[in-house]
Amino acid sequence: MNTAANTTAHAANTLDIQRLVEPRSIAIIGASNDPKSISGQPMRFLMQHGYQGALYPVNPKYAEIAGVACHASIAALPATPDLALILVAARRVPDMLRQCGEKGIGFAIIYSSGFAEAGEAGAALQRECAEVAKAFGIRVIGPNCQGFVSTGASVYAGFGAPFGVDYRRGGLSLISQSGGFGCALLLMADELGIGLRHFITTGNEADVSLLDLVDACIADPQTSLIAAYIEGLKDARRLVDVANRALDAGKPLLAWKVGNTADGAKAAASHTANLGGASALYRTAFRQTGVIEVTDVADLGDYAKAFEAKRLPRGNRIAVVTLSGGAGILITDACAERGMSVPALSAATLEQLKPIVPAFASLNNPIDLTAGILAEPKIFADALQIIADDPNIDSIAIMAAAASGEVARAMAEAIVRVYDATTKPMMLAWNARRDMAADAYEMIEAHGVPLYATPVRCGRASAALSDYAQARRARTAACSAEPLTRPQYNVEHARALLAASQGDLTEHASQALLRDYGIETPRSELAHNSDEACAIARSIGFPLVIKVQSPDIPHKTEAGAVRVGIRDEAALADAFDEIVASARRHVPDARIEGVLVQEEIRDAIEMIVGIENDASFGPAVMCGLGGIYAEVLKDVAFRLAPVTHADAHAMIRELRAFAMLDGARGKPPGDIEALVETIVALSAMALDQQACLKELDINPLFVLPAGKGVRAGDALARCMPRAATAVDSVGDLHESEHCAPAVVDG
Amino acid sequence: MNTAANTTAHAANTLDIQRLVEPRSIAIIGASNDPKSISGQPMRFLMQHGYQGALYPVNPKYAEIAGVACHASIAALPATPDLALILVAARRVPDMLRQCGEKGIGFAIIYSSGFAEAGEAGAALQRECAEVAKAFGIRVIGPNCQGFVSTGASVYAGFGAPFGVDYRRGGLSLISQSGGFGCALLLMADELGIGLRHFITTGNEADVSLLDLVDACIADPQTSLIAAYIEGLKDARRLVDVANRALDAGKPLLAWKVGNTADGAKAAASHTANLGGASALYRTAFRQTGVIEVTDVADLGDYAKAFEAKRLPRGNRIAVVTLSGGAGILITDACAERGMSVPALSAATLEQLKPIVPAFASLNNPIDLTAGILAEPKIFADALQIIADDPNIDSIAIMAAAASGEVARAMAEAIVRVYDATTKPMMLAWNARRDMAADAYEMIEAHGVPLYATPVRCGRASAALSDYAQARRARTAACSAEPLTRPQYNVEHARALLAASQGDLTEHASQALLRDYGIETPRSELAHNSDEACAIARSIGFPLVIKVQSPDIPHKTEAGAVRVGIRDEAALADAFDEIVASARRHVPDARIEGVLVQEEIRDAIEMIVGIENDASFGPAVMCGLGGIYAEVLKDVAFRLAPVTHADAHAMIRELRAFAMLDGARGKPPGDIEALVETIVALSAMALDQQACLKELDINPLFVLPAGKGVRAGDALARCMPRAATAVDSVGDLHESEHCAPAVVDG
Repeated sequence: MNTAANTTAHAANTLDIQRLVEPRSIAIIGASNDPKSISGQPMRFLMQHGYQGALYPVNPKYAEIAGVACHASIAALPATPDLALILVAARRVPDMLRQCGEKGIGFAIIYSSGFAEAGEAGAALQRECAEVAKAFGIRVIGPNCQGFVSTGASVYAGFGAPFGVDYRRGGLSLISQSGGFGCALLLMADELGIGLRHFITTGNEADVSLLDLVDACIADPQTSLIAAYIEGLKDARRLVDVANRALDAGKPLLAWKVGNTADGAKAAASHTANLGGASALYRTAFRQTGVIEVTDVADLGDYAKAFEAKRLPRGNRIAVVTLSGGAGILITDACAERGMSVPALSAATLEQLKPIVPAFASLNNPIDLTAGILAEPKIFADALQIIADDPNIDSIAIMAAAASGEVARAMAEAIVRVYDATTKPMMLAWNARRDMAADAYEMIEAHGVPLYATPVRCGRASAALSDYAQARRARTAACSAEPLTRPQYNVEHARALLAASQGDLTEHASQALLRDYGIETPRSELAHNSDEACAIARSIGFPLVIKVQSPDIPHKTEAGAVRVGIRDEAALADAFDEIVASARRHVPDARIEGVLVQEEIRDAIEMIVGIENDASFGPAVMCGLGGIYAEVLKDVAFRLAPVTHADAHAMIRELRAFAMLDGARGKPPGDIEALVETIVALSAMALDQQACLKELDINPLFVLPAGKGVRAGDALARCMPRAATAVDSVGDLHESEHCAPAVVDG
Repeated sequence: MNTAANTTAHAANTLDIQRLVEPRSIAIIGASNDPKSISGQPMRFLMQHGYQGALYPVNPKYAEIAGVACHASIAALPATPDLALILVAARRVPDMLRQCGEKGIGFAIIYSSGFAEAGEAGAALQRECAEVAKAFGIRVIGPNCQGFVSTGASVYAGFGAPFGVDYRRGGLSLISQSGGFGCALLLMADELGIGLRHFITTGNEADVSLLDLVDACIADPQTSLIAAYIEGLKDARRLVDVANRALDAGKPLLAWKVGNTADGAKAAASHTANLGGASALYRTAFRQTGVIEVTDVADLGDYAKAFEAKRLPRGNRIAVVTLSGGAGILITDACAERGMSVPALSAATLEQLKPIVPAFASLNNPIDLTAGILAEPKIFADALQIIADDPNIDSIAIMAAAASGEVARAMAEAIVRVYDATTKPMMLAWNARRDMAADAYEMIEAHGVPLYATPVRCGRASAALSDYAQARRARTAACSAEPLTRPQYNVEHARALLAASQGDLTEHASQALLRDYGIETPRSELAHNSDEACAIARSIGFPLVIKVQSPDIPHKTEAGAVRVGIRDEAALADAFDEIVASARRHVPDARIEGVLVQEEIRDAIEMIVGIENDASFGPAVMCGLGGIYAEVLKDVAFRLAPVTHADAHAMIRELRAFAMLDGARGKPPGDIEALVETIVALSAMALDQQACLKELDINPLFVLPAGKGVRAGDALARCMPRAATAVDSVGDLHESEHCAPAVVDG
């Protein structure tokens, strides 16, 4: 894929928020003269924080509010404001928005609730707002939001006590789908010393979405770090693009997606769809694009602190240094659990360290220099410097436990000396009471060394930094890689096949689809009676597998419609009759198209691969451990399409089952290259056929020993329902993209 | 098992720490007159905190220290102190300890380092200390420890700045194997307002162990909560007993075991041992006995706060109440991830709530009452009370996000009103800045409502409380359950069989061992040539499995020494020769005892069960998903023996594979009762045969459909090495318990 081109194409569509965050004038529609009421607060806070533009309260009840002239209507305003804040009751909002449009106002924030969150009548009002906004070209934030803060022009346009706080200026832009929780994050970040650029709550997102605003912040030169609090994205398929742009811009994007355990029941036909769904795909998208996942309020501040130090590690190898026995294990655990490596120091480093450190020091990583080393702080600094210079080490975490008083000061002096002399990231876990080490804390903070109250938080922050650096490296590699020649897939044949189908494809039809994408299937042929089956057997040879083919029986094993290990014609004839009878018992009205007679694949590793065309995210590809218990074992990895060869390799390596593919327990290694090609082909199919293909499973995908390829043991494909906009209520495909009738249009 | 009797038996051996924590007089051996030096600090801190007993510094160099008379030797002391603090160089410690013994001192704390942590010479010194302690009956803490604090008698006997802090008194006793990290935990607990009873660092544990001290704190009436920081327990097999006593005493035991990812490589023969090891067994022991696992510094304070409120939920059903949109999801996620249920409110509750809550409120759990409800705080309190009274709800968590100012005060008033009117646990997640809601915070804290800065921490604390309450219920049920009659196992036959064996048992011998414990094996017989095999086949019937039997080939599949699916005599004869040849290729010198001819079990679920006789924990039992990839899939549950029927049921339900046993994907459910009996039988075997049996795997254990039992498809047993004290260096079995020669002694 040509990512650079994609990025440029998208940048042109980025929402320009200049007039939103630095408005020259603001109308406050429905402003109240009670400064404590919700509709009185935005004006109060704007004035309190010294907003310098013009304020136009609009309310026919008043002549002035807080000394500012109040206007009877929007039409009566003396000029066109850059921004309107709408604080009237929900039913009056569409009319007010229309009046804003007529006045030529470019941005509106709707604070009022009583829209989609409050039932169908409210949803209708919200749709009306969206239509008005579109008709007039107004960009609308909300409804049902809490407003925003932009520190550049001191715009504090919201309600609630957090808007009364004066936030220190800085590079963090925080976009939140929850007002209350957005404020909680904002306060926590402020408490941890993170400076703010923009804070925007998005409410119901009738028009402007969270991703629109994240995108706008990527383009904002004064934003250095972006955080998003996400309940659900209607335009989730844009996430990868937006996140990649953030990665290209070098602006870390932290995301907290809530609702991980509340997916609700699903009833998809395929394993892939059952194993996927919103949570898995969000996590996949985050991982794919270097989005740093946040899972509690404190993470945001902890990670922001790490990123604000502006040092990225060159790799994931960390040295953990402690002065206090086993305590280094805590950081080590937190780092290792998140995929960092805590390697041995190089031989040269050990040689330099041994003569200077105390006799009882342990130089295995985690490295225990012992508290005794602080008796001579210079030696501690020298030892730390030697460790920092080790070419095997990319970053350093120091566990200071509760070092206090003079010990703390000596330690801090040594740490800042080394921090200034190295470019590698260094972090510190330390929880002395502040009053027990005041000057040491000040020294550490003044030098910008990220400081954490607990070793686990320090380790997690180190890992976040390392993950981000790794994502940047992968992105650079992907962008500079030669584009691979796409294999010659039979895209048109596959498209025609899908367009002519509906519901579930039979295995026989699915096999044809797979062959269009170069995925090999076992030798097989459809038999309509046992004589035909025996004739086919003579050409394929034993042992054989036979399976009833019916569009009404997607799960053949459960229906007793499969028999494996058939070794001769007599057994074949018996089994033929038995599985047809069993299938008929299981689904009495099933349309039976025949029995597939197939060579039996042996000595292979059974994997599962598949496609889920998610209503929010679009096409995604899955790979995992296969077999009939795939959903029980849940050993799967997802990626949003397109999936590169490097992505596919990474997916496979995420699996516990990788050990099997890699030759566990004396077995020969599997043909990983062929598995990778299959995943890449499915990714192409998912994108090529997304208008018609809803789900696809290959289970099992037999992975033969290296060099012998893979065979699709069974396949299940499900088409998009005809004429529906999408299976899921949150679908946002345009009508024109949907499954066309059986016409092949190239 | 008769737990009550066990408890009583142990209580008699409990270390009495009365004279340690409330010493009437203390000798400080090696005291320095430099109050900043390590050997000067304990005396300084004792005086600073107002210790009222007599102090006897011992150091021939001084006549007095800080105004207190200094003595030339221990022998010269005017009285026998209750406690000696030893601060001399390591090489002089054994002699000082001997002098303490001669003086009749009962407790000594050795601060000095340079013992087992510093190599073999130090280890020898440490052994000498242990011998002296034993000879004189001195109970010794350390060496290489940082001392202790006991707030009752204001004994601050340690070095380092944390000993200068005046800790508020309370019910927490904290025992730590790390000095530095123990201090960090102590400071964090103090900061969160948790009052301290004892803080003891245990160092190298030459004599008194962490578990000795935990046990002593259980017996201490003023300790209400115990926390332990664990690097590794030499006497780990006592953990279950000690933890059960804590559970019986109603004193929550919080434990932080570090080193989770640093287990190092193992090379055990069995899957069970490879999948077990220290981390798995610690976690198992914790879970089995209601020990609350802590994984970061802040957890300790968070959980302590929850326990200090002295309310336990009756079940795991929580109502999550929010005033702020999606924020309740965060607590819900944290609770649900840890096994709590967030159920629907009862119909009666909904009927009472609907008329009073705002129109936009969402009454699904998590319950969003909306910020609007605080316009009338009485209604908020009424709604909260109705929720608290719901019989479907056992505890309540409230997500207040950043509520501030008047809103915060109204909220706090309502919460404390309901808190006082219910006995159910209530907790609050709230992160307004303190100065934005000062009076509200004070009100909440004064009423003792546990308060958390983040929703995840609130949810985790709720889950910890719920887990503990569940463990208490399970303990009560276990203690009051009728003891089951133990099946008639052939214990003596099995003992003789093991005593006569060495190294790995063949499958044939292992099968005999299993039959001694009532575990069925497939019909099978040993053949020495293919003619014998065919004769056996005629009596068993086809299909068959055949396997080479050799003590030198524990993993037969990898050696090509197994063939399945044999359907006739011709195939049997061919396969016989092939697998013997393959086995010989694989292990040229293998002693081959024959080929096992066995009925083939079909339509069964393949599980694995096993025994690991851990050097620290003693016998443990495992159950998991079987097959040749058991170690890849790692879907296993462990329990320390003895395992009850209820324990075995719980183990099985922990597995992902439980869905298979329960009848996933149209398959008939497996014979779970027979699986439970097998686990209980293995538990009995593990205990009966612990002197000789090191490891045992049954893999696969074929679980047939319900009512049809289980069959041990393959088994591997390994004996303890003869004459060794234990395989592992930390083994602590007494010689006499070890594998005896082949004598059956009843």
